Order: sequence, then structure tokens, then C-alpha cells
Amino acid sequence: MNQDYIKPDEWSILEEGFDADKVKSSESLFSIGNGVMGQRANFEEQYSGPSFQGSYIGGVYYPDKTKVGWWKNGYPEYFAKVLNAPNWIGINVFVNGEALDLFTCKEVKDFKRELNMKEGFHHRSFVAVLPNDIEIAVKATRFLSIVEDELGAIDYEVEVINSDAELRFEPYLDGGITNTDANWEEHFWKTLDVKTERNQGFILSKTLKTEFHVGSFMQSEVLVDGEKKDLDFKESRTHDKLTFSYTVNAEKGQKVSLRKYAGYVTDMNHDRDQLVLAAKEVLESALASGFEELLQQQKEAWAKIWEMADITITGDVKAQQGIRFNIFQLNQTYLGKDERLNIGPKGFTGEKYGGSTYWDTEAYCIPFYMATKDQKVARNLLIYRYNQLDKAIENAKKLGFKNGAALYPMVTMNGEESHNEWEITFEEIHRNGAMVYAIFNYVRFTGDFEYIPEKGLEVMIAISRFWHQRANFSSDKNKYVILGVTGPNEYENNVNNNWYTNYIAKWCLEYTMEMIDKVKQGFEEDYERIMGHTNLTDSELISWKEVAEAMYFPFSEKDGVFLQQDGFLDKEIKPVSKLDKNQRPINQQWSWDRILRSCYIKQADVLQGFYFFEDHFSKEDLEKHFNYYEPITVHESSLSPCVHSIQAAVLGRMKQAYDLYLRTSRLDLDDYNNEVEQGCHITSMAGTWMSIVEGFGGMRVREDQLEFTPRIPDEWQAYSFKVNFRDQILKVTVTKDKTRFLLEGDSAIEIKVDGETLEVSPNQEKTV
Amino acid sequence: MNQDYIKPDEWSILEEGFDADKVKSSESLFSIGNGVMGQRANFEEQYSGPSFQGSYIGGVYYPDKTKVGWWKNGYPEYFAKVLNAPNWIGINVFVNGEALDLFTCKEVKDFKRELNMKEGFHHRSFVAVLPNDIEIAVKATRFLSIVEDELGAIDYEVEVINSDAELRFEPYLDGGITNTDANWEEHFWKTLDVKTERNQGFILSKTLKTEFHVGSFMQSEVLVDGEKKDLDFKESRTHDKLTFSYTVNAEKGQKVSLRKYAGYVTDMNHDRDQLVLAAKEVLESALASGFEELLQQQKEAWAKIWEMADITITGDVKAQQGIRFNIFQLNQTYLGKDERLNIGPKGFTGEKYGGSTYWDTEAYCIPFYMATKDQKVARNLLIYRYNQLDKAIENAKKLGFKNGAALYPMVTMNGEESHNEWEITFEEIHRNGAMVYAIFNYVRFTGDFEYIPEKGLEVMIAISRFWHQRANFSSDKNKYVILGVTGPNEYENNVNNNWYTNYIAKWCLEYTMEMIDKVKQGFEEDYERIMGHTNLTDSELISWKEVAEAMYFPFSEKDGVFLQQDGFLDKEIKPVSKLDKNQRPINQQWSWDRILRSCYIKQADVLQGFYFFEDHFSKEDLEKHFNYYEPITVHESSLSPCVHSIQAAVLGRMKQAYDLYLRTSRLDLDDYNNEVEQGCHITSMAGTWMSIVEGFGGMRVREDQLEFTPRIPDEWQAYSFKVNFRDQILKVTVTKDKTRFLLEGDSAIEIKVDGETLEVSPNQEKTV
Repeated sequence: MNQDYIKPDEWSILEEGFDADKVKSSESLFSIGNGVMGQRANFEEQYSGPSFQGSYIGGVYYPDKTKVGWWKNGYPEYFAKVLNAPNWIGINVFVNGEALDLFTCKEVKDFKRELNMKEGFHHRSFVAVLPNDIEIAVKATRFLSIVEDELGAIDYEVEVINSDAELRFEPYLDGGITNTDANWEEHFWKTLDVKTERNQGFILSKTLKTEFHVGSFMQSEVLVDGEKKDLDFKESRTHDKLTFSYTVNAEKGQKVSLRKYAGYVTDMNHDRDQLVLAAKEVLESALASGFEELLQQQKEAWAKIWEMADITITGDVKAQQGIRFNIFQLNQTYLGKDERLNIGPKGFTGEKYGGSTYWDTEAYCIPFYMATKDQKVARNLLIYRYNQLDKAIENAKKLGFKNGAALYPMVTMNGEESHNEWEITFEEIHRNGAMVYAIFNYVRFTGDFEYIPEKGLEVMIAISRFWHQRANFSSDKNKYVILGVTGPNEYENNVNNNWYTNYIAKWCLEYTMEMIDKVKQGFEEDYERIMGHTNLTDSELISWKEVAEAMYFPFSEKDGVFLQQDGFLDKEIKPVSKLDKNQRPINQQWSWDRILRSCYIKQADVLQGFYFFEDHFSKEDLEKHFNYYEPITVHESSLSPCVHSIQAAVLGRMKQAYDLYLRTSRLDLDDYNNEVEQGCHITSMAGTWMSIVEGFGGMRVREDQLEFTPRIPDEWQAYSFKVNFRDQILKVTVTKDKTRFLLEGDSAIEIKVDGETLEVSPNQEKTV
Repeated sequence: MNQDYIKPDEWSILEEGFDADKVKSSESLFSIGNGVMGQRANFEEQYSGPSFQGSYIGGVYYPDKTKVGWWKNGYPEYFAKVLNAPNWIGINVFVNGEALDLFTCKEVKDFKRELNMKEGFHHRSFVAVLPNDIEIAVKATRFLSIVEDELGAIDYEVEVINSDAELRFEPYLDGGITNTDANWEEHFWKTLDVKTERNQGFILSKTLKTEFHVGSFMQSEVLVDGEKKDLDFKESRTHDKLTFSYTVNAEKGQKVSLRKYAGYVTDMNHDRDQLVLAAKEVLESALASGFEELLQQQKEAWAKIWEMADITITGDVKAQQGIRFNIFQLNQTYLGKDERLNIGPKGFTGEKYGGSTYWDTEAYCIPFYMATKDQKVARNLLIYRYNQLDKAIENAKKLGFKNGAALYPMVTMNGEESHNEWEITFEEIHRNGAMVYAIFNYVRFTGDFEYIPEKGLEVMIAISRFWHQRANFSSDKNKYVILGVTGPNEYENNVNNNWYTNYIAKWCLEYTMEMIDKVKQGFEEDYERIMGHTNLTDSELISWKEVAEAMYFPFSEKDGVFLQQDGFLDKEIKPVSKLDKNQRPINQQWSWDRILRSCYIKQADVLQGFYFFEDHFSKEDLEKHFNYYEPITVHESSLSPCVHSIQAAVLGRMKQAYDLYLRTSRLDLDDYNNEVEQGCHITSMAGTWMSIVEGFGGMRVREDQLEFTPRIPDEWQAYSFKVNFRDQILKVTVTKDKTRFLLEGDSAIEIKVDGETLEVSPNQEKTV
């Protein structure tokens, strides 16, 4: 743990006391978002201390020219970067002409921040003594509306405590922003126009190269002691910045507040030449509602989200805060309304990693969204990949694959590959399997088989073609092998026959063939369309079958376990527990070659396969593999401990399950990796949810039925979660000695609890 | 072949006719150097067409900030770059005020270039019609003195053909140069001072960061029809450029020539505050000798080099030109006088690859220098590495090695690693073996065993320590293995148990132990010193022995060959001959993963081991391995065909040996790789020499005796080469039916020819 300044609280993230060294961390942790746009928790007023400015719009990106030491054929020319967008939160404040700047104030007292997760807003209050000795009290509330998702609102209240004073508020829009993460320090934006209409301001910008057109807008009103004032204002502008200036002569003790309504409209949703018009509509509707009404709507909307997605934990406030923070951030990042968007690894909290979409979405996020939202949300995540199938085929073509084979990118914004490390970009191909697994998982959970004939099967065929071409026959082994890959454990590169990759490849081929048969039988029209479109031949299917049946899997007879890859037994095996602490994390201490030839595993690899395909293996198998691999896993990826936690729970090792759970749930709040100032680990937060629901709750779906094997860590008195299963909501509450099930729906369902069938009727709590 | 504009000639490289598209290629091919400094063949006068300016000083480099997409622990912060140095060749020419510029002339006629390899100068002549219709004939001769190695001289003669005209010559020094190869477009030089003393000019510069101080200097004289004229001149300067201006009113038909004496003095050889003084001395001595005398010295000095190093080929002018070009360029790059210098892969002909020193020196260049120069030259190349031992130990330490283990860098200028691709930098560790092999090879050839107690053994111990630590015990194989390496075949990365690497590691350990015993017995004082210095313990030696004895080598029972690495048999084996031509070179056509999982070999790997350790294997073994690996070798490294050529010759496959020989000997002249404009492939030129001497001539040293197995390609009538063997020179002349041996020395030697002993007495030709 690198920090513990966040105050424990069940529903809020709280910081007390001003510390300039914490500003960047808090900017990440207190980030707000509404699934469409989001921001780091930068101060509204001028701040000259260390800060990382960031405001992001979902789907708006910039293809930054690739930076690489040694070029390899097939590298993408561009890396799609998450893009710091024009600043609309800015409100500079002057007191008797002196700028308020917390970094230069004589004193900052009673500084408090709250990220109110229950109601979805950010609040900050403090008392500051300015260099000119004027003392003011500030309260600032800000939120991004999830009801009106192009809108943000700020209420910025100043009270002069020790005298009368002239207060000047300067709300502004600034198009002259830059990215922290830019390969060549190039500009990503061009400001097209700065416009005003009375007290409404607009900046029209476009991204260079990608030509996203974005309108940033603002309108402000001033209240004195709660009364709206119709003040004169001044306007000043440069080619990329627009500032309004409101001056109030405040009496001592008077509360003057500036309310700023602002946000973005983009040409993803409006005609380019209608952006100002669209912005005006947003502003007029916002002004008509007013700040309180908008905030009320926000609270109600968040209440609805929590109603579905909340997990309660009794007896462990920090764990409660941790899991809610994870659920809150996931919802801030993606709400599933727009199939063009996805879940970036940093969400709207930072720029690192670029791109928006990794295999994290399919492997970790889909279960969360499936169970806590309408099933359309998960479907939209699948459609996102379906819509990018052509690009995935193009991507595979660049690497020499033929005949409509597809390789989904490692990192992407628009379907094109962004990443440029050969051992990842070209070799971490298991990601392709996760695309098919997500379809399987979605259909298993939702029962929405129609998705397969409608869209899924085309993706599956293209991916199976890839696997078929990527495997080659080893006459030495008399088996099909897959050479030169990087598995989920990125601490091995360019290995042969990574078990996980071979396994998911075989499974993809078999599952695709099974689905082709099913579609052929039940969806003739779709079948004809797909066959016509893909030109899939019988001989192709025969050779798929051949590859799938004769796939090679490295196995240790001695240990009775599948080996992570060929040659794994040549390594020196020494458990992580015997590794000197000062050698950890190895990725900061060791050179890459040393990491590669060590036995240490960055994140679940063979065990990832055992997680995905749990039902293919016995519990004894799982135990044997868990005993073999867990002791040599360093969990230096945020995506790792959740899978091991679930498996420890399955094996009844609750202490270990709990310890592994803890490593992710407060990863950012406690800043384990000493890097939260770069942003939060959004996608791994879904893994935390899985640890509770699938690990502790033991939830599975088998044969269209929900199953549970509830367990509870010693440290908790109780916990509860809800699951949306096929449009009915089941609430599960686990205590030390029993589990309660409550169904919100209209028809009774059968579930299994610890292997026993249980009928749960609507609104009648069942206890086991 | 991408070009064939170079005219065949036995002793010169010739170009006829001006073609702006060829300028950059010719700038490389016609480069001149004297082992201490060198230049691309840029025009003296202004040229506005495409050109690549380059003038280089041996040992003077700049640590350019590393550029990398994804940083890995252990990467060096800097890449030592070959440095484009201040320009002293410049002579702008104005005719009636109009600048001579071949790119903008109305016409260029009778353009000829000659690189006279026999005498070591560059000559260029042409007739140009300027935009103002004045027609002039130009003859320019330039050389870098190998006698006075800080000096260059230019004779630039202009004749106005069609009228009288005012000729203005503007010889200049320019410190405001830049590198083409710069990672971040930073400046590498700072000009400290621009000085003149009468008609002598000086620019004092220093490299940034490395602080090499360099004085560039010039002095000119003007001759009209061969008569020196004591002309007035003007001087102009900026902060980094100095120009003198000489004006002559020339009559039609008069020949006016400007002779410029110039060059560099550096603080590698002089006190920093004495640079101007040193430069004045060079100038005064040069002026005293005069151009003709200096050129005469140059011819004589080159004659001496050729006397030792020449290879004659009768009946194949292109082959003759090719081999002389190779020998000439090697001598231009390195003459072995200065143990601080080494042989850069591009020599003084370009910037690509940075650094000056690769394992090319030990593996390819040392045999050439050993056999064609005094043995001190090869010794100096060994001392270069000895002097960098501390840095090699430091380098290994960064990668986690202990106890004085050394890893020599992949690319270096000063001993520190420059390279930053993990699969090369951290894993292409076989280079370490080449350091020891070079010592072995040197001692075998020269008999200078003293080098081992004096310096070599310390290097060997540090390298053996590296191998000992780098291997690990595989309990699965019950053998020692070396995991995660890149062999000489860089088309495989991060493989386990590369046979070549394991073999040279084992050999290093054994050879070092053998040498420790020998030194212990014969050089007690040195032994004590070295043991005191290295703290080598008996238990260390015991575990070296254990590793060496139990080293694992991948072997195919089925094929009866050692395998390039573990898992090689899983590949699809398809000979290069069956590969579609449009797929070649694969490094331009295929993505990296595809190259890696293919069977194709970039350059000799297992066969490199068979080359180094020929005597460890039978001819049948060689044949079996050659038959296995040669068909799947693509030779996409300039260092590859020579080794295969030698082995084809050993196997009596002269057609194949000749074809392979041809691929390197005219690689640059015919621009096979379409890249000669970036510079010449200097180090591979030594491989061409080996192909003839060791391949066709079959020269070996065994038990202090020279052995030959002469063979001649069908295409040749005869060839000859000379070998300096232990201070006596043996000339070998091979014709279709016999071989003649002529010894220049004072004591008879016994040699073996085709296995038969032959005594050769001084100055008595022996024929076999």
C-alpha cells in the first residue's frame, strides 16, 4: 500500500486536508464520468501546482504517429490515443484582483473532497487565505449528467469571510489543450471557431487527422445568497480560448455562486454544421431545469444504477468502499447505450495505454455488464467487435493471413491495431479467442441465441479461419502446434504451444463448428446469408476439424499438469514466497531477459483457461494446476488476482481467496502500484466484482440455470449482490450461516444452491 | 542486382555520365578514408540535388538519447552515434558570380568519377554549362593522407572553355552540420570558436555531452596554369562557418586551380588548448611538401598496403574489382594503428547502425587483419575489448549478473551498450563467445601466447563467469540449459538452447580453464596477479566444469543433426528454392511473427559453429549439417554467404561456393540490397576475403602450421593472395592445375598442401 489518505466511508470517497503532493492522485480517484464523457478531478480555478489535466470524450481519438526504436514490418503507423479534449470546467476566481490558486495561498484550511458515489457528484470545500490576506470559503459541486449526457454542471460558491471584496469569476472554454501522452509532442486539435451569443459561449474544434468535430459550450449564471443576479459581463477571447468575466462586489459573509452549465456536442451525434445549435438546445434545457433539478435527476439516475449493481458488505467498511468505487467507476466509464463505445483501461481518468479497447472487455468486463444491466448492454459490446470485423480481417491480412481470417487488435479505437511491440501485437493472439468466448458467455448467460445467426457466427468463422491458418502441423509431434506466441502471461514472449492459446484455439474451432450446425438447422435464412458471404467450404471445415482434433498440449507427466508452454520444465522453479522482497515487483527490478527465463507468471495463464473452461476439468485437476501455478504467479497485472481469487474460493481456500480479492478491490484507492496519478485501473475493477459474485457467491450459469455456492470470508458479517438473469432480478444475501434469495420479477425460477435445486418465487425471500 | 553503372576495372571504381539519381549511391561507393577519418564522396562545390553529407572522425561519437516505443528495464539511456563532423571539403565556385551547382547547370558533360584504389585517391572531372552559358571544365582530386592522418588535400581545377570569366573560389569550414541519423533531431555539436591567421582558418568545435574537442582547419593556395599566385582574399564568417574567397580573372583556356589542405585535429591526440597549434603544424608540413609530393606519399603508402593485402583474380574483371574494393574499404576504415578505434559496420561511409563495434570485428574482421598486416593490428583489436572489460562487467551487472561476470555489448563506441531491442541487447549473448574465440584465433594464428597471461585471460574469466551464471540446471533434462537467447540467426528470438550459443558457452568455459592451467604453469607472476584481481576460487572452477560437461545440445535423432534450438522440428521445413520470389527478401515482405515461426535462417547459425569449430567435427558431419541448413538459409545478412561459401568449398561444391562468394563481393558495387546510398557494408567485406583465402585457398592454421587445400572456381583462370604468417609473407597463387607458393622472409617454413607437408624456402617458388 502506498497511501491511505482516503477516508473509509460506505458511500463516498473522502479526502480531508490539502496536500499538493496528493493532487494528481486525487485528480484520478475523484474523476467523474457519465459513460459518454469524463474528466479527471482538476480544480475549476487556476492551480499552479503539479496537476494532470484531462477531459475526455468517448470515441474521440487521435492517431498519434507511432514511436518505435526498431521498425518491424506490420507495425501500425499510428497509435490511437485517448484525447485530452477542450477544457470547459475552468472558472478562474479573483478576489480584489488577486487570483485564487491553492498552490500559492497563504493558508488552505478545512479542505475536503467528496466523490459521492451514491448520487454521482463531486464536491469540494475549503477555506483559503489569499496572498492579499482575504479569507474566503469555497464550495464547489460538479457532476456530469447521466440523464443529459452532453451536459456538465458546476456550482461554485464563494463567501468572503473577513471583509467585503470584489469577486471576479471568469468561466472559460479553452481549446488550446495538449496531451500528456503524445509521442512527438504534436498538436492533436485545431480550433475552428470561437463564438458567442449573449452569455453563451462556444468553441468549435476538430481533431487533426481523424477530423472529429467537437463543440464545447458554456453558459453561466450568478447567484448572490441564492438569488439569481442579472449581471453585466465582459468577454475576451484568443484564437482558441473564450472567457466571460462576471464581477460582484460582495459583502463580508455574502455567498456568491457561479453556476456553469457546459459540455460537449460532437459530430458523432449531430451534423457538423449543427453543433452550435445542438449546444444551444442542451444549454436551454439545462437552464430551464436549473442546477438543483439537474442534480436531483442525477441522484435518481444513479439510484437506479445502484438498485441493480450494488454490492453490500457488512462489517468491513474499507471493503464496502472498495467494491462500490469499482462499480461506480465502471458505470462512469461505460453505460452500454452506444455500441460505438467501449471500456478503456483507464476509462476517463487518464491517458495511459491509449486506445479504448483491449481483450479486458471480453474477458473481464462483459460478465459485470451482463449481470448488472439490461442484456442489450453486453450485446452492444459484442456488436462493437462485430462492426470492426472488416478491420480485423484487414489486420490479419497485413500479417499474411488469407481467406477472410480475422485477428482482432490488441489495442484499438476504431478496429485498427494500435499497438507496436512485435511480441504483443503480432503474437499475443489469444485475444482472438476471447472474442468468441464472450459470445459463448453472453449466450450462455442471456439465452439470446439469436445473436449467433444474426452477427456472432461471422465473427466466429473469421476467427476460426485465423486459428486454422495459424496452427501448423509438426511432423515431429504428429500434432498441430501453434508456434511463436505470447500468452496472457506477458512475462513469456514468443513461446511455442502456450497451453492457453492452443486450448482456446481448439475450442474456438469446435464451438464455431457446433454453432454452424445449429444455425444450419434452426436459422436457414441466416445460414444461407452467412455461407454466401463467407464462402465457407466443406473442405475448410474438414481441415478445421483435423486441426482441432490433433491439437497439441504440453503436459508434464511427472507433475500431472498441463505446461504453460513447451520447455517450461527447463526453468528453475522457485516459489514467489522465496523471492527476496527487494526483487519485487520483478518488472521494475529485473531486465526483460531475466523475467522471461524465470518461472514467474505475470497473470493467470493456464489458470485463465481453467477459469474460462471450468466445466471441462475436474476439481482435482483445478487443484493440481492451482497448486502448481499459483505459487509462481507474481500478479503484476491488475487483471490477475481476481481469477486466482475465484479459484481459491472454488477450492474452499477462503483466506487465500480473500487476500487475493483485497489486492484488486482497493488497488487504486490505496495506490498499491504507486501510479494512481496516471489514472485508475478501470477494467480490472470488473474482476473485483467477479471475485465476489463468482468467487464468494459461486455464481454460475449451467443449462440455462443460475447456480450458487455461497461462501463468506471470515472478515465479513454479510454481503449481498443482485443479478439480472433474463430480465428478472435476483438478490442474493450471504451471511455467516445462511443465504437469502429474493426475486424481483414475475415468474418463479429454479436455481441451484450448493448443487440442490431451489425454486424462488417473485418477492418471496428464500433462505438456505 | 539493383544497379550496374559502375564500370568494370581491375584497379578503379569508375562512374561515367552524371545522373542525379545516382549521387547518393556514388557518395557511398566513392568514399575515402585513412583509418582515422573518412568521408562520403560529397561534391566540394555547392550541390542542391539529393545528397547525404557525411564526414566522420574515428572514435568521436555522440550518445544520442534512446528512442523506444516501450521501455524495458536495462535498456541503455543512450545510443552512441557515428557523428557527422564539421565539413572541411567545401569549395564553392562562382563563375561570373554564378554558382556552380551540377543540379542546376544547363548541361553536364563528360562526367567521370574514379576511386583509384591502387593509389588511394578520388578523382572527378566534368564539363558544365552554367545557367549563364559559361562552359567550364573541372578536375577535382581529393585524398585523405594515410601518411599524415590528420590531413586531407584537394586539387580543384577549373578551366573556362568558352570565354574569359571571373572565377571565385570559396573554400570554407562549416561547423553547423547535422546528423541524418538523429533520434530526436537534436544538435550534436557546439562551435566554440572561429579563428583565422592570415590564410589559415580554424573552427574549434566540441561534441555535446561527450565533449570531444575537434579543430577543423584549412589553408588554400591558388595556381594559374600551374603557377602559384599570391592572391588577396576575403574572409567572412558566421558563428559556425568560415569562408575565404579567392577571385581570379581567368582567360579562356587558362587552368585555375585551388588547392585546399585541411582536416581535423582532436583532443584524442592533442591537448585541448593546443588544437590550433597542432593544426598549424599539419598545415605547415603539408604546404612544405605540396600537393604532388603528398599524393606521391599516398601512392607509396597504398602500394605497401597492396603489397601485403592484394588478391589478384585472373579472368574475371568484375570479381577482381569486387575483391579489391572490399580490401580497399577495409583498409580505409581501419589500419590498426590505434587501439581505441575499431571497425564500424558502415566504416566512414554512412551513419546507419551507429556505434563502431559489433561482434563482426571478432568473428569476421580479425582473420583479415591478422593475415594482411603486422600482428600488432589484430592485437590492438583484442586490446580494444580488454580496455572495455570494466564496462562489460558493468553491463552484465545491469542485467543482474554478479561476481565480475562480463557481457560485451551488442553495439558500442566506448564499451557501454548502445542497442535497445530486448531480443538483441539482452539475448543475443553469443557475441560474448566471439570475444574469446577471437583470442583463441589470434593465438592460434600468431603464436603470441603471451597475450593470454598479459590481457586475454582476464577477459576470458569474466566471460566464463557470465556463461556459468547464464546457464541453469534443468531437472527435466538433467542437463544445463541456456534459456531465452537469440542466436546469430536473428530470425529467431528468445529461443531455448540455441545450439551455437550453448556450444560456444561450453567451449569458452573449457578453453578458459585450459588457459588458466597453462598460465598457472608458465606465467606464475601473471597468474598470481590475475587470481588476486579476479578472486577466482576453486569451487567456481568446479562448477564451471560441471556446467561445461553437462551442457545440453538439441539434436535430431531422425536427421542426425544438431538442431538450431529446442522446438526446431515443430517448424514446417520448406527450402528457400520453393519460396515464391515475390516473398523475398522475407524481412521486407513478412511480419516479424511470420519470420520467427518460419524455418528460414537469416545467417549462418549452427553452421557458424561448424565454421568456428571445424576441427571438432568430421567432414561427414559438416556435410549433413550443411545439407540440412543451407537450403533453408535466406542469407539476408551481408555476413552470411561467406561462411556458407567456405563450407561449400570444403565440401568440394565449387559452383555453389562461387555463387555464394559472388553475393557478398559485389554487394555494394551492384547494390543488391538497394540501400548502398546509406553507406557500404564494411565488416562483411572481410567475409569476402575469407571466402577466397579460407574457402577457395583452403587456408587453415593447425599446430602452428599453415595448411592449404587450394581450389579454383571454373570462372577464374587464376588467383593469388598473400598471408603474413608470423612475420614472413607467403604468396599463394592458384591456377587451374597448380598452386605456387612463394615465401618472402628469411627462414624456410613447412606448410601442408592437401594434407601433404611441403617445405617452402625464402624466395624460391614451390609449385604443387
